[in-house]
Amino acid sequence: MALIEDLQWRHAVKAYDPTKKVNQENIDKIVEAARLAPTSSGLQPFKVLVVENQDIKDKLSEGALNPECMREASHILIFAAWHRYTEERIDKVYDFTTDVRGLPRGRFESYTDKLKSIYLPEQAEENFAHTARQTYIALGLALAQAAALKIDTTPVEGFNSSVIDKVLKLDKLGLKSVSLMYVGVADAARDWIAPMKKVRIPTEEFVVEYK
Amino acid sequence: MALIEDLQWRHAVKAYDPTKKVNQENIDKIVEAARLAPTSSGLQPFKVLVVENQDIKDKLSEGALNPECMREASHILIFAAWHRYTEERIDKVYDFTTDVRGLPRGRFESYTDKLKSIYLPEQAEENFAHTARQTYIALGLALAQAAALKIDTTPVEGFNSSVIDKVLKLDKLGLKSVSLMYVGVADAARDWIAPMKKVRIPTEEFVVEYK
Repeated sequence: MALIEDLQWRHAVKAYDPTKKVNQENIDKIVEAARLAPTSSGLQPFKVLVVENQDIKDKLSEGALNPECMREASHILIFAAWHRYTEERIDKVYDFTTDVRGLPRGRFESYTDKLKSIYLPEQAEENFAHTARQTYIALGLALAQAAALKIDTTPVEGFNSSVIDKVLKLDKLGLKSVSLMYVGVADAARDWIAPMKKVRIPTEEFVVEYK
Repeated sequence: MALIEDLQWRHAVKAYDPTKKVNQENIDKIVEAARLAPTSSGLQPFKVLVVENQDIKDKLSEGALNPECMREASHILIFAAWHRYTEERIDKVYDFTTDVRGLPRGRFESYTDKLKSIYLPEQAEENFAHTARQTYIALGLALAQAAALKIDTTPVEGFNSSVIDKVLKLDKLGLKSVSLMYVGVADAARDWIAPMKKVRIPTEEFVVEYK
């Protein structure tokens, strides 16, 4: 039950100690959990941007609802999804897949043709609605990995994405920011939510069973 | 690095042995990981429906792109999100939160007022786009918990949600299905993807660092 205990341990930290940093080895493990996340058709339609640089954190914080928390965290992870699917992006992933597996390129062509027939006629917004969803799987796993390492985090949706996208020039990467994850060492004195009990909907309300 | 190893171990199973079942204790652990998932503002705007009943699985499979896989899995989890936010739903979660924490109801009123001012004027589709995203955090954690138990799973987006919603009468619960997770014991002989190497975008492409 290690994962369950880790999830019970974690909470969304409200204030970080700006003098304390998370080491690179642990950041790498958190990012690795995100990289291993399953995604729809294995397309992994997103990247994770990791900001440790204080100047950039300060600029990003202008788009945050909790700017002080962002500035004082050790690292900021930005989950940024493909703004849309393209033929090139789908082919690149599947060419890499067949290469890694020692299969001929095009081995999954009927499948990629199907994906293209679904995604390419859609509006960019519809594509992005789908790619954005995938990032949440990775966000959850990154939060769980941090908790396994007893590293404090804050998952964040409340931010001005146009500021974040502009500072990081995400349009040049064909990406749009979806969520943030602050990583650091909580400042216990200011992390007001820490002493409060974790609250989740009771199991009997959360689950409906059909036996 | 247990979580990372679990994520490396898992894959999206393509065929299950219909004679083998996953025990209730393990299903409960998988659901518990989903229940503990963080969600936006702690609203947990979804439920998990767990179908073990074969007749219902058969009916649900009419909406699946891989019906045999669905019918033969031991259990089907359906992640179903609130079709929209309502004042009652938001108040119910926050009343429960204050009750559990021994705080006066209304303690977070300025926050819930803000949530209501954002969500309630939106169209139902905009609300659902947000609630649906949250379910992916729980899906990822449920997949990770199953992997920790060495239980086979398949995350599934490819299905006809109108069939699933109708069979499970989700409209009566104010829910719409978002994703499925098949749980069971893989049939190694037919699970063609099992021998293939797991493929993920290389770290140097997946991550962008700003030091």
